[in-house]
Amino acid sequence: MASAPELSTTDIAELAGFAARLATAAAAITCKHFRSNISVDDKQSRGVYDPVTIADKDAETEIRRLIKETYPTHGILGEEHGHEPGTSPFTWVLDPIDGTRSFISGVPLWGTLIGLNNGLRPIIGVMDQPYIGELFIGWPGHAELIFKGESQKLQTSGCTKLEDAILGCTDLGIFSPGAELETFQALQQEVRLWRFGGDCYFYTLLALGKMDLIVESGLEPYDIQALIPIVEGAGGVITNWSGADAHEGGQVVAAATPQLHAQALAKLKGAAAL
Amino acid sequence: MASAPELSTTDIAELAGFAARLATAAAAITCKHFRSNISVDDKQSRGVYDPVTIADKDAETEIRRLIKETYPTHGILGEEHGHEPGTSPFTWVLDPIDGTRSFISGVPLWGTLIGLNNGLRPIIGVMDQPYIGELFIGWPGHAELIFKGESQKLQTSGCTKLEDAILGCTDLGIFSPGAELETFQALQQEVRLWRFGGDCYFYTLLALGKMDLIVESGLEPYDIQALIPIVEGAGGVITNWSGADAHEGGQVVAAATPQLHAQALAKLKGAAAL
Repeated sequence: MASAPELSTTDIAELAGFAARLATAAAAITCKHFRSNISVDDKQSRGVYDPVTIADKDAETEIRRLIKETYPTHGILGEEHGHEPGTSPFTWVLDPIDGTRSFISGVPLWGTLIGLNNGLRPIIGVMDQPYIGELFIGWPGHAELIFKGESQKLQTSGCTKLEDAILGCTDLGIFSPGAELETFQALQQEVRLWRFGGDCYFYTLLALGKMDLIVESGLEPYDIQALIPIVEGAGGVITNWSGADAHEGGQVVAAATPQLHAQALAKLKGAAAL
Repeated sequence: MASAPELSTTDIAELAGFAARLATAAAAITCKHFRSNISVDDKQSRGVYDPVTIADKDAETEIRRLIKETYPTHGILGEEHGHEPGTSPFTWVLDPIDGTRSFISGVPLWGTLIGLNNGLRPIIGVMDQPYIGELFIGWPGHAELIFKGESQKLQTSGCTKLEDAILGCTDLGIFSPGAELETFQALQQEVRLWRFGGDCYFYTLLALGKMDLIVESGLEPYDIQALIPIVEGAGGVITNWSGADAHEGGQVVAAATPQLHAQALAKLKGAAAL
C-alpha cells in the first residue's frame, strides 16, 4: 500500500473548498430533477430492487468532469460510473445521490456524498442536501454545517449509554435475514428511541449531536467514505462491526462517544462478518 | 350533530390565511428549540414512551392565544392542552409538533398541524415544516405548497396499482402486535417501495404526487384532521381501514387514487377496528 502524502492546512482548505464546489455543481442537476416526474430504472444490483435515475448519472458525470479538469492525476470511484484509477495516491469517492429511494419518494433526506481518500483513508468528506440547503463538511479535527450562509461547528452528543441513545438506521431491509437482522433488532430494544429512513442524513445528525448511534449493513465504500471525516471530525467513532476501519463499507456502526461505541460493538460483534 | 355553517370563498380565504399566520407564530417557537439542547419529558401515554418538550407546549399555547383573540367563539382541540369547547360550530384541531420523535432526533420531517373543523368535518388544513421552509395548505378543491415564496399546486399521482406504489408509514411500532401488524406487513410486501419515519410529512408527499399510499394506526384526531383537506384537496382519498371518515384518527389509509385506495382497503379490512 502506498504511503499517504502529507497535506498542509492550506492543501486541506483548498481540497475541501473544491469538494464543496463539486457539491454545488451536482446540486444544480439533482434539484432540477427532485420531485419532478423523473423516470426510475432498476439496476437490480444483487438481485434486489435498486432504483437509479438520470439525476444520479448526470450529477456524477458532472462531478467527474470537474475533478478531471482540476486534478487530472486523481483517481475516481463512484456509484454510477465505476472506478477510474489515477496516477496520484488520491481518489475521490462519490455517491451523487445517496438515498435514491428517498429521492424518488420526495423525502429530502438524500444527499450528495463526496469524499477524498489519500490512499490510506478518507480525509475530507462532504454531505450536501441541496433542497434543504445544508452542506456538512469534515476533515481531521474539524466538522461543520453550513446552512443559510452560517457555519455551525459539529460536535457529537455526550451519550455514553445504550438506554439513553437515539438510534438511526435506513431500513431493516438492509440486514441479512437471520443472525444479522436479529442482532440489530435486539440492539433496537435496548435504546431510548429509534428512527428509520435516513441514509447518509442520519450520520450528519450524529455529527450534529442529535442522534447518538447509527447501525447499518450492506454499505458500499462510496456510501460511507465521505461520512467518516464528518463523523470523526465531530468527535464520533465509526468502525465496522468488528471494530476495524469502516472504509470498505459492509457492516457499519457510528457512535457519539467511545463508551457508547464499545457498548454497541459488544452487542454486534457476534454477527460481525469475518 | 349540528349542521355545518356555509362558508363563502372569502370566508375560506380569510380562515386559511389565519391558519397560515398561526403556523408562522408557532414556527418562531419551534425553530428556536429545534436541534437545541432541549430537555425531553415522557408523557407515558398509553404506557409507552411518549416524548414532549417545551417547544410542543409553548407553540400550542401561542396558537391558542391567537385563536381566542381573533375567533373567541371557536373551540380548540390540541394535543398538549386538551379540549376547550366553543360556542360556534367551529373547532381548531392542533398538533404543534407532529413527529416529536423526529423533532428530538434532529430530523426535519416533523410538522405543525392546524386544522379547522366546521362541526362535521375538517375543511381547512395546514402542515408547516418551518426548518425547511415548506407550508402545505388545503381546503375543498384546493391544495398547495408554498416554498421559497412560490406556490405549487398539489396533485396526487395517478398510481392505481399496489405493485407500482410507494408506501409510507411512520414506524412499525404504531401497529398493534398480531393481526394489525401482520396485515400491514403483508401489504408492505406487495408495493414497489416503502419508506418509514414520516409522520405528517408523508401525507404531504402523497399530496405532492411523490408517495402513493400511506397506511397508519393509533392516530389521534389532532394527528390527522389538518391533513385531510390537504390530501383531499390534491385529489387523494383518505379514510379509516373500514372505508369510513378518518376524522377520529385510529387506523388511517390515504391513497393517490380511488382505485389504489380500494385495493389497499381490500387488504386492510380484515384487520379493521370494529
